[in-house]
Amino acid sequence: MTGSRVTRSIVAITAHSGDFVWRAGGALALSAARGDSVRVICLSFGERGESQGLWKRPHMEMDTVKRIRREEAEEAAAALGVDVDFYDLGDYPLVVSEDARERVVAALRDAQPDVLLTHVANDPYNRDHNTAHETALATRMVAQAMGHDRATTPIGATQVLMFEPHQPEVCGFVPNLLLDITPVFDRKRKAMEVMSAQHHLIEYYTELGQRRGVQARRNGASGDVLQAEAYQRVFPLVGAELI
Amino acid sequence: MTGSRVTRSIVAITAHSGDFVWRAGGALALSAARGDSVRVICLSFGERGESQGLWKRPHMEMDTVKRIRREEAEEAAAALGVDVDFYDLGDYPLVVSEDARERVVAALRDAQPDVLLTHVANDPYNRDHNTAHETALATRMVAQAMGHDRATTPIGATQVLMFEPHQPEVCGFVPNLLLDITPVFDRKRKAMEVMSAQHHLIEYYTELGQRRGVQARRNGASGDVLQAEAYQRVFPLVGAELI
Amino acid sequence: MTGSRVTRSIVAITAHSGDFVWRAGGALALSAARGDSVRVICLSFGERGESQGLWKRPHMEMDTVKRIRREEAEEAAAALGVDVDFYDLGDYPLVVSEDARERVVAALRDAQPDVLLTHVANDPYNRDHNTAHETALATRMVAQAMGHDRATTPIGATQVLMFEPHQPEVCGFVPNLLLDITPVFDRKRKAMEVMSAQHHLIEYYTELGQRRGVQARRNGASGDVLQAEAYQRVFPLVGAELI
Amino acid sequence: MTGSRVTRSIVAITAHSGDFVWRAGGALALSAARGDSVRVICLSFGERGESQGLWKRPHMEMDTVKRIRREEAEEAAAALGVDVDFYDLGDYPLVVSEDARERVVAALRDAQPDVLLTHVANDPYNRDHNTAHETALATRMVAQAMGHDRATTPIGATQVLMFEPHQPEVCGFVPNLLLDITPVFDRKRKAMEVMSAQHHLIEYYTELGQRRGVQARRNGASGDVLQAEAYQRVFPLVGAELI
Amino acid sequence: MTGSRVTRSIVAITAHSGDFVWRAGGALALSAARGDSVRVICLSFGERGESQGLWKRPHMEMDTVKRIRREEAEEAAAALGVDVDFYDLGDYPLVVSEDARERVVAALRDAQPDVLLTHVANDPYNRDHNTAHETALATRMVAQAMGHDRATTPIGATQVLMFEPHQPEVCGFVPNLLLDITPVFDRKRKAMEVMSAQHHLIEYYTELGQRRGVQARRNGASGDVLQAEAYQRVFPLVGAELI
Amino acid sequence: MTGSRVTRSIVAITAHSGDFVWRAGGALALSAARGDSVRVICLSFGERGESQGLWKRPHMEMDTVKRIRREEAEEAAAALGVDVDFYDLGDYPLVVSEDARERVVAALRDAQPDVLLTHVANDPYNRDHNTAHETALATRMVAQAMGHDRATTPIGATQVLMFEPHQPEVCGFVPNLLLDITPVFDRKRKAMEVMSAQHHLIEYYTELGQRRGVQARRNGASGDVLQAEAYQRVFPLVGAELI
Repeated sequence: MTGSRVTRSIVAITAHSGDFVWRAGGALALSAARGDSVRVICLSFGERGESQGLWKRPHMEMDTVKRIRREEAEEAAAALGVDVDFYDLGDYPLVVSEDARERVVAALRDAQPDVLLTHVANDPYNRDHNTAHETALATRMVAQAMGHDRATTPIGATQVLMFEPHQPEVCGFVPNLLLDITPVFDRKRKAMEVMSAQHHLIEYYTELGQRRGVQARRNGASGDVLQAEAYQRVFPLVGAELI
Repeated sequence: MTGSRVTRSIVAITAHSGDFVWRAGGALALSAARGDSVRVICLSFGERGESQGLWKRPHMEMDTVKRIRREEAEEAAAALGVDVDFYDLGDYPLVVSEDARERVVAALRDAQPDVLLTHVANDPYNRDHNTAHETALATRMVAQAMGHDRATTPIGATQVLMFEPHQPEVCGFVPNLLLDITPVFDRKRKAMEVMSAQHHLIEYYTELGQRRGVQARRNGASGDVLQAEAYQRVFPLVGAELI
Repeated sequence: MTGSRVTRSIVAITAHSGDFVWRAGGALALSAARGDSVRVICLSFGERGESQGLWKRPHMEMDTVKRIRREEAEEAAAALGVDVDFYDLGDYPLVVSEDARERVVAALRDAQPDVLLTHVANDPYNRDHNTAHETALATRMVAQAMGHDRATTPIGATQVLMFEPHQPEVCGFVPNLLLDITPVFDRKRKAMEVMSAQHHLIEYYTELGQRRGVQARRNGASGDVLQAEAYQRVFPLVGAELI
Repeated sequence: MTGSRVTRSIVAITAHSGDFVWRAGGALALSAARGDSVRVICLSFGERGESQGLWKRPHMEMDTVKRIRREEAEEAAAALGVDVDFYDLGDYPLVVSEDARERVVAALRDAQPDVLLTHVANDPYNRDHNTAHETALATRMVAQAMGHDRATTPIGATQVLMFEPHQPEVCGFVPNLLLDITPVFDRKRKAMEVMSAQHHLIEYYTELGQRRGVQARRNGASGDVLQAEAYQRVFPLVGAELI
Repeated sequence: MTGSRVTRSIVAITAHSGDFVWRAGGALALSAARGDSVRVICLSFGERGESQGLWKRPHMEMDTVKRIRREEAEEAAAALGVDVDFYDLGDYPLVVSEDARERVVAALRDAQPDVLLTHVANDPYNRDHNTAHETALATRMVAQAMGHDRATTPIGATQVLMFEPHQPEVCGFVPNLLLDITPVFDRKRKAMEVMSAQHHLIEYYTELGQRRGVQARRNGASGDVLQAEAYQRVFPLVGAELI
Repeated sequence: MTGSRVTRSIVAITAHSGDFVWRAGGALALSAARGDSVRVICLSFGERGESQGLWKRPHMEMDTVKRIRREEAEEAAAALGVDVDFYDLGDYPLVVSEDARERVVAALRDAQPDVLLTHVANDPYNRDHNTAHETALATRMVAQAMGHDRATTPIGATQVLMFEPHQPEVCGFVPNLLLDITPVFDRKRKAMEVMSAQHHLIEYYTELGQRRGVQARRNGASGDVLQAEAYQRVFPLVGAELI
């Protein structure tokens, strides 16, 4: 699928190590399949709040949960064809230290992303998502500053897309991009199946993909679009043509 | 600029005969230059409320105002390279009869548009704009109905983009597309210069183009984008790639 | 399920004859099963715009479409255990005449509803839904007026709940009631299966029921809630207890 | 209170004949006391929906209700020191014919108002209020049109302020002007006491005045502000000084 | 009032020691009267910013203010029949340390609340209210985490209701529950009378109770509802019946 | 321009040392010209993120950037006739320590401002702006507290106006005050010309001034208003007259 297309750089800044799979696995796999550079930043493993499946096993310990979450996320990333970095900042609540922010800024300057993916601004169910959103916007700003770390190169006006939260309407999520993920849905499915701590979500997100696919067709996609993911843009799209 | 690109169909549904020039002249010229079919529907001439320049001339009559407005709009349309239809439904207030709605529906079925351009939903300054917006959404719906006029072909899920009102924030306008109109700005300028009844707007909209151009660059456009127009999408964009 | 509970009166004001099935079938069946009086007002048959399945059959005529839509809606209503009235006002666009409004007002005064169900206020895809919403609020107001038709009894401050549109976020729909429809989901399924003109929606709305069920559990419902429907209240709930 | 101040022109466009008393009586009396021209347009008498007190009397007839409502409104207007015009267009629902709109336009051109007062845009309880709001914005637009009725003088960019609805939050009302009505509160009280059909509202609106007065002090008013009315501006205020 | 009803657990997380009285005293007393467990968390005494009445007394010291505020809050809590905990975290600004957050989490796990009450998300007048709101959502999230403090029991999907701020519209407060507090209003009044530092508020909140009572009746409550409190729900209500 | 008018106190709380020039230079000069006390608080120099022009010069060092930014801001302040304080808290990101907050509180108590100017609440492009906004609201609250620093005098209910961000619609900015800055526009222009690090903005903000001037006239300003600045009020205006 790569051809003569200019390759691009995508970075996802996520709260818990499962988020990139459930919420943006299709977009990430799609970009990877086209030869883009795709990096996922997992600020935490979601070890306390998003590992129900693991904590129900006997004699579970925090280190084991984190190890399994890491392994599963790595395996899922491999299924999607993307790279993943773990920041291990803790969850419930996620706290992003100044050092961690600097590390994200450095990663952005290194990646020079065309697109940043992250959570919505205000998820009343999960404040870690908000923290990740704020981290994305704040580090983007710092990474743009000409006077910051003169040894590295400032990034440009990177687009930011928010992926879909679990209960979109309650989070004020209004999709303005329905992304066709049909060509890579099998990869997303494979990645989801790896996530043993949250197995109950697989059917849920499979159906969500189909639902967003139906809606994509209702908004003009061709009939061969079967699955889609929904995104909401933070900044205006810049275009050379009416679309 | 045409090349092997698939040509598209664009329809603009506008309240007054100057609206397509000031608010969407760039987008229309851009599409026309690329070989798209572009049709403008002017529901009225704006003869009563948007022809100050003409009414200040001595001995002006309604018919003369309408004639001049028509001639100027035709000349402007020619400068942009687009077709224009006049419905002459009256302005201040614009009233869209059932017959007129049917005529718009027929035009949509004939044009099979990929994109519809129209006004915002709620302009407190100008209720004719709201009427045009409602007409666009209502006729789009009817034109989609399988059981309507079985002799013509239903349209698909046409995208609708709202162009920029005069005082965007007061109208709830939040742009999510900044369209590069640099390649055709000279045509828009020429079209604007034709509009004798509203000459005071030329500098205003020239500066607006530059302002939106600066903002486009601030949102990631390349440095050679000098002028832009702002649009707000009603329905989600459907895409095959993260943008 | 009836017991000593006070029975109530529910009225649904809907645009097209399928709407009450897809969007509110669970709520209606639930109320009916508890002995409430439940009446559905179908302002149109959705004969032009919501009968794709029928128009694809050869030699289809408008009268036949309307007849089949009526029969199916009656059969679906029977499956749900509710009464349905057809106003046959036309669709795409739905136009509610003064006479029709008076008829709705009379029906409201007769039913003395505790709850009104209707569409959202602003569905950009489907302006008939908006018309039905406006009709519900306007007729509720008239039916409350002491000086209107002194021979019948004014209604009280009936609650109004909006049921879920097809693309909720794009319609500004934010659910604040997730209604457990598990006990009657088989009836809703049966009612959906009757709707031959829109068979493609059955799986879609079955999955939506499950999805809203998962969300209900995420908002505190017990584990035996499997399917739910989402509603958004227009007026504040009045309560005797914190819930 | 008049002094050397430039007198101004105020017009209120209201749905029912009691509205100007309850919702804007203070503002109107204040302007009148300062020598401004103040005219109230009552589009209906509120004879069907807002005359509970009258309909509870035995043998009441529509004509009697309207007569009493007119007399009371005239008496209340006198107490406030303002002029009132009755359009008698009917209520619940209020329907504004094309002729009635023309009459409002003529009244606006005659009054050349500096400020228009009217209802909020979207009151879910009372659609007549919405109709009055729309009438205000639409007639303002027509009255501005240079090409409308060349024999009369177009109005300028009249400010529009929405007065407070009965349940402000549910109507999306967010006050941005708290008007000190302390100097004329006795007149408003007197005007309210005239309204026999809605006597239950007197204490309610007296307390509301005090409540808004407390809030005015919380927003910087001096301690001698005892009563206030709340308004929400449709258009930006134009100022020569930071306030 | 208790009977065979299942008792419930209510927790209020409030910024200053008076907030639970003025804003939620009715709801708390109502629950207490029905045998529910009701606990109030006062994050601060409001000693600096909400004790005007005390600071106006001669020779007042911070410790004395805090002592009196505590005593009054305890007395008010007793009048309402509820328990209160003081965190003494300081006010204007309120700063919630990590330790304090852990203490709230532990309290939530201990109480296993069915309902959490707290402030609105964005009060421009008082940022301490926002801090309390954020604390409520963040501690709720942590208290739900399976991997947090394995020795205590995670809470479920507790409902969160925001009580009414002083200037509701400016804080974006839109009530969707009007709670009948008539049966316990005497207790709320008694509790308010205890609060010597803010005596000026007693009449204000008494009238507010009546005002919300009138509005409750306007939204369908029976005629014997005299006082109400307004609440806005953060998460959707889960119901087994249309209400 | 001073005359017998009561002088007032204005304080601007800004993120970077250029903000007061571009965004509020007109308002500040206007107040200064009328004899008001005007103080500007620059929380940072914008040395890292808003000094592109300087960083492009060879061998530039952080201290030099800060020194030049300070000198230019002082010169611009002199051109406007206002005082400026530099807090040097760093930018991209701006971090406001507890000490710095106390310093702002003390400055507010000293200035006893009638009006506070600051940034919008939510600028997705620039989180430092949000930090400045939050600082303004939080320090205003503390400065009002009777129990804070008993040696200084609490401030009253100071009005807060947000000045215009670079991309207003994307920041949710809706102007409700268009301030005529025509009499002092030459001073603003002079102040802008001093800012060597951001020279590219001069034409942009000159045109913006004209644009807002046109809009002021469209909202009722007289024809001699040539330039304006846009502001959005946080709290309701308190008035003694309908405006």
